[in-house]
Amino acid sequence: MANRPFDVLNNAIGKEVLIILKGDISIRGTLKAFDVHMNILIENAEQLVNGEMKTKFGKLMIRGDNILFISP
Amino acid sequence: MANRPFDVLNNAIGKEVLIILKGDISIRGTLKAFDVHMNILIENAEQLVNGEMKTKFGKLMIRGDNILFISP
Amino acid sequence: MANRPFDVLNNAIGKEVLIILKGDISIRGTLKAFDVHMNILIENAEQLVNGEMKTKFGKLMIRGDNILFISP
Amino acid sequence: MANRPFDVLNNAIGKEVLIILKGDISIRGTLKAFDVHMNILIENAEQLVNGEMKTKFGKLMIRGDNILFISP
Amino acid sequence: MANRPFDVLNNAIGKEVLIILKGDISIRGTLKAFDVHMNILIENAEQLVNGEMKTKFGKLMIRGDNILFISP
Amino acid sequence: MANRPFDVLNNAIGKEVLIILKGDISIRGTLKAFDVHMNILIENAEQLVNGEMKTKFGKLMIRGDNILFISP
Amino acid sequence: MANRPFDVLNNAIGKEVLIILKGDISIRGTLKAFDVHMNILIENAEQLVNGEMKTKFGKLMIRGDNILFISP
Repeated sequence: MANRPFDVLNNAIGKEVLIILKGDISIRGTLKAFDVHMNILIENAEQLVNGEMKTKFGKLMIRGDNILFISP
Repeated sequence: MANRPFDVLNNAIGKEVLIILKGDISIRGTLKAFDVHMNILIENAEQLVNGEMKTKFGKLMIRGDNILFISP
Repeated sequence: MANRPFDVLNNAIGKEVLIILKGDISIRGTLKAFDVHMNILIENAEQLVNGEMKTKFGKLMIRGDNILFISP
Repeated sequence: MANRPFDVLNNAIGKEVLIILKGDISIRGTLKAFDVHMNILIENAEQLVNGEMKTKFGKLMIRGDNILFISP
Repeated sequence: MANRPFDVLNNAIGKEVLIILKGDISIRGTLKAFDVHMNILIENAEQLVNGEMKTKFGKLMIRGDNILFISP
Repeated sequence: MANRPFDVLNNAIGKEVLIILKGDISIRGTLKAFDVHMNILIENAEQLVNGEMKTKFGKLMIRGDNILFISP
Repeated sequence: MANRPFDVLNNAIGKEVLIILKGDISIRGTLKAFDVHMNILIENAEQLVNGEMKTKFGKLMIRGDNILFISP
């Protein structure tokens, strides 16, 4: 069992995650790195709008304070 | 009696909680972990819209600054 | 006379309080605990909409940064 | 002359003040206590809407980050 | 020449200033005091709406985080 | 080459800059001073609305947290 | 592999990046410098609206707290 919420991010490095941002923006891709501010680096990122793929990014660095929740 | 608000989270580890976020989003599921920023890890999470189940997530890490209140 | 605003919360432990949150949400119930961030634990909480009872919660932990004012 | 803005609050303890909050909410009442975060305790508080008295509170603790300005 | 932005406030003590707040609120009056958070004490303050005088205050303490800009 | 973003402000002291604030407000004028919070002092400032000059200020102190970007 | 999200910015110095700000503003240009607050200096910057070029800036310093995500 995870003892701290960030443990779940640590275990998800190299795996696919879904990140929901404030303002109804979703990003799906491979978690490559994160820091204590919840800044996150995603590879092969897809930005989703209403569940449909809108834009692809090779790499995407997300500023942590925009994040609503993350599903590993 | 709880002496600090966070004690109630500590006592709710492993139990079902309801988390209301800013912007009328509700998450229900099993509380697995939390930290001092109120970042929260939920398992078997359900996102509710108007009390109806909308999306299921095996694991969900919620960023603390989105939280309005938590009912353990 | 209270010397600091938080003294009034200390004196209200175990008594009924009304908490008004940003965004026109009211919570009424028994104050059980609080901390320096104004995070608050309420028991027998009622969420009010336009003065009418909407939802009951046995326990409710409110994140402090949502609070507009508290009437003890 | 006041040397720091907070001096004017110190001089207003026990006197009537008008507090304007973000989002067009006004509170009038007797200033009883304040702290460095501008959290404020008011007694015999009246919440005003468009200059008309809406609700009375025996005591009201206002969270400082909601405050726009205070007229002592 | 001012070396730091706050020097211009220091030089404006006792003089008339115009303060524009977030949300299109303007305050004009005599600058009496300020602190490092940009909290500001104004005397003979006038609140302006669309350039027209709306309300007069003998003293007004403005919370710094509402300020957009100040013209000394 | 600038090594830090603030170097570009340092090099722009005494020169004309364009400052875009959150909420679609533009300020153009001569950069006189800035600090680590990005508080900025402008002389001969013009507030622009849709690219048209709206208001002139001899001096303007802009609170840093309103700033979107600055073009030196 | 990047170990921290900021490593990806370090590797992108001198290269073209796309920066998406809160409020649907996009900036494209050459990354020249950044700091720990994610303040960013861009050269040959283009502001995009709906994918169309709207304004060009020789240099642009972006305040970090406006940033949603960055694609290097």
